[in-house]
Amino acid sequence: MPPPERSVTGRSLAPRHVTSPMGPLGRGGLSPGPIYALRSPGANETMRGIQMGDDATWEDRLEHASATFSRFVPDAEPARVLASMERRMGALGTFAFTAVGEMWDRPGLTRRDRSLMIIAVLAAQARNEELELHTAVGLRHGLARIEIEEINLHIAAYAGFPAAMAASRRMDAAFREAEGVAEIEGRAPADHLSDPERMERAADVRASLTGGRANPDPRADLEALRGHLGELGDWAMKWAFGEIWSRPQLSRRDRSLVVIATLVALGQEAELSFHVRAGLNHELGRDEIREAMTHLCLYVGFPRAVQGMRTAMEVFARIDG
Amino acid sequence: MPPPERSVTGRSLAPRHVTSPMGPLGRGGLSPGPIYALRSPGANETMRGIQMGDDATWEDRLEHASATFSRFVPDAEPARVLASMERRMGALGTFAFTAVGEMWDRPGLTRRDRSLMIIAVLAAQARNEELELHTAVGLRHGLARIEIEEINLHIAAYAGFPAAMAASRRMDAAFREAEGVAEIEGRAPADHLSDPERMERAADVRASLTGGRANPDPRADLEALRGHLGELGDWAMKWAFGEIWSRPQLSRRDRSLVVIATLVALGQEAELSFHVRAGLNHELGRDEIREAMTHLCLYVGFPRAVQGMRTAMEVFARIDG
Amino acid sequence: MPPPERSVTGRSLAPRHVTSPMGPLGRGGLSPGPIYALRSPGANETMRGIQMGDDATWEDRLEHASATFSRFVPDAEPARVLASMERRMGALGTFAFTAVGEMWDRPGLTRRDRSLMIIAVLAAQARNEELELHTAVGLRHGLARIEIEEINLHIAAYAGFPAAMAASRRMDAAFREAEGVAEIEGRAPADHLSDPERMERAADVRASLTGGRANPDPRADLEALRGHLGELGDWAMKWAFGEIWSRPQLSRRDRSLVVIATLVALGQEAELSFHVRAGLNHELGRDEIREAMTHLCLYVGFPRAVQGMRTAMEVFARIDG
Repeated sequence: MPPPERSVTGRSLAPRHVTSPMGPLGRGGLSPGPIYALRSPGANETMRGIQMGDDATWEDRLEHASATFSRFVPDAEPARVLASMERRMGALGTFAFTAVGEMWDRPGLTRRDRSLMIIAVLAAQARNEELELHTAVGLRHGLARIEIEEINLHIAAYAGFPAAMAASRRMDAAFREAEGVAEIEGRAPADHLSDPERMERAADVRASLTGGRANPDPRADLEALRGHLGELGDWAMKWAFGEIWSRPQLSRRDRSLVVIATLVALGQEAELSFHVRAGLNHELGRDEIREAMTHLCLYVGFPRAVQGMRTAMEVFARIDG
Repeated sequence: MPPPERSVTGRSLAPRHVTSPMGPLGRGGLSPGPIYALRSPGANETMRGIQMGDDATWEDRLEHASATFSRFVPDAEPARVLASMERRMGALGTFAFTAVGEMWDRPGLTRRDRSLMIIAVLAAQARNEELELHTAVGLRHGLARIEIEEINLHIAAYAGFPAAMAASRRMDAAFREAEGVAEIEGRAPADHLSDPERMERAADVRASLTGGRANPDPRADLEALRGHLGELGDWAMKWAFGEIWSRPQLSRRDRSLVVIATLVALGQEAELSFHVRAGLNHELGRDEIREAMTHLCLYVGFPRAVQGMRTAMEVFARIDG
Repeated sequence: MPPPERSVTGRSLAPRHVTSPMGPLGRGGLSPGPIYALRSPGANETMRGIQMGDDATWEDRLEHASATFSRFVPDAEPARVLASMERRMGALGTFAFTAVGEMWDRPGLTRRDRSLMIIAVLAAQARNEELELHTAVGLRHGLARIEIEEINLHIAAYAGFPAAMAASRRMDAAFREAEGVAEIEGRAPADHLSDPERMERAADVRASLTGGRANPDPRADLEALRGHLGELGDWAMKWAFGEIWSRPQLSRRDRSLVVIATLVALGQEAELSFHVRAGLNHELGRDEIREAMTHLCLYVGFPRAVQGMRTAMEVFARIDG
């Protein structure tokens, strides 16, 4: 569960629920896609993630953003950080402080969750300088080094080895700096596995990814994948599922969050649709997935985040029949 | 209006209209998409953008390309630039001179318009060296520094902050070089706004983007966006529309051109479809949008430019019923 | 024809055909796409590419991977390369050795073919360090320098000039190193062509790309392209087909492989669909195209490779009626 909304400075925050009378629905949308009839939330589902206020003052906004930057840049006064960013970058500096700062202070996902996602999308997109910075931020948000390294295995599988190799170099620079060492020692290799061992581990992953709908006989399940994907089915089964997803260093739920974010960054809706469902099977909440799409807009841009949100909503609607 | 076609050297140019008898339509296409039945142009629409000659001599082509490079590299003889590029890069050098040079000398969009687009797509794609070069070219094509900085705010919103932050560093290097200073001074921050102020500005933007079809009550309009996009609707409304699109430093028409180019570079057809329509509402001409797609092929590759052209043609066809 | 499967060390390899009893097809797939009813292979089509074993031991896997790295890093013992990669990168190092090593040792495409593809996708994705490395590997796999330079012309056309210019710099570094020179001398420019010359060459390319279905009158064929693509049709016809695809420095079959790989990397399915068919017209085998999609998963990630495989299978199914 994410932590409850809190004020870092102790000042009470502007309410985030809708306080104003709403008029009728407008005719124009951001894009000409279908309008989704949003279900009322079920008993175990809150509307907190959905409700937002329309009446925050500038001071309210500044307080949220400042709370974030007091964590990003712990040894500087947030007001001075803002002034410095505006002097160096003008309006871009204002927005890099306020939009980014407000986003990271939202409820709905923990800061550790947000770091999992943002490290993944920076690596997938080869945003090198930001990746080094956010690796350091991720460590401060409670991610262990081996968890961040685990993110990068999914980058290898979902964005390719060249992306992961480049990301590895930038992450390493941040790790060495954080640990104050010239070289990271004692890294553990992956297990050296035979095909039968890979298949057995893959079967366990396929069961959790699909909520028990995959054929429990891994050879039969693989045969089904081959029907879709030819030889790619073998690589998905034995390597991606059997060797990466099966590792115990990061929870399945966290891996789903990493992969969902990566697929949004890559704009891969077909695969995303499968992994939104897998994320739900791995105990990600619908509100968490929606909050993930919201946060991602600042790191992959609105168009891909909007596509991600649409894909997630379509999956939810299909599940609800 | 774009300037009329002209010869920089004073030599009369090869006619660009179709001068040869045409056979029946071929059976094969570049891609197996539907064939668009092109409407005859209406009264206020010219065919100039459509008509091209098939009989330019090498000398005609060289003259157009040389006119461009005399502006790109003002202190060198174009013939020597071509010889140098061919010596260093072989056939790639030939094409980087002729294809790029001919494209930038086309009518249909001003050079300032072309620079707006190309700076945007280089930033969106993190093409760093080229971005620095084209920032300098953009200044020579009549863009002010604050206009180029304005492009980058749309990159933050449409491609994400990491892309914009990296672009900011490369643009800055070109600005410092052009202004002959060690540091750019006196940048203005964005206005520090409350939610009601953001909503009010967003309403004005939504009205112009949608040609008056958005609900004029911004709270009702936001509620409609939330129906499509969940919480992303809040960020689109308050930040992208209320804080970026609403700024007076660049015209809405120029912003539409920047965003259309960015969406083509990102391959985001759904969002592009909305923004082609918005561009028409912002007084971009159909010919200008088609010329934009044509120019972009050299900077994002044919496949994305072709998708962009198809999306634009589909929007035009829907408007015409 | 690709070389027959072989063991570099002389040890007999694990059989790659399916040796285990198969259960019924599973209900879950990697993605919720349609299940393709795979045809039985025809008389001239082998199943070799499809059949894979499920029972390789770790030693079998290690042997394939070691065979690859003895070629990638000729002056080091593969076992020491693996140990070094694992020490520096942990599990990522294990997979960068085993997955990459096993893939490059597969039958179905020659190593030269694989290098053609991988150089293309690294250039298209701006993976700079890996591109320099793989340019050197490509030379060792039998590609001539002018063939690798030819790949980059397709990058200019399909991913844009900025990608090609950056790639050119990295390729050049590898060429200079391999040739032991400070500067590559004597590069040949492209022919300096008039429009009629470009159209004539384009007609020949269009005939081979479409298997003779394009209108043999290039002006009529161009008019058809204009109907789809407006002015972009002129640039596709005269430049991409007339000046790049028509060059004799690389076979049409090899160019098709390069372009297919590039389109998979860019996630451009519509264009890919055309070029899979064009590849078949250029004598690429279906098994080769499927093997290409398989290999690409390690360099562009599963989602794009999976989309590529689906697109290829759809084209095959349409051809078979």
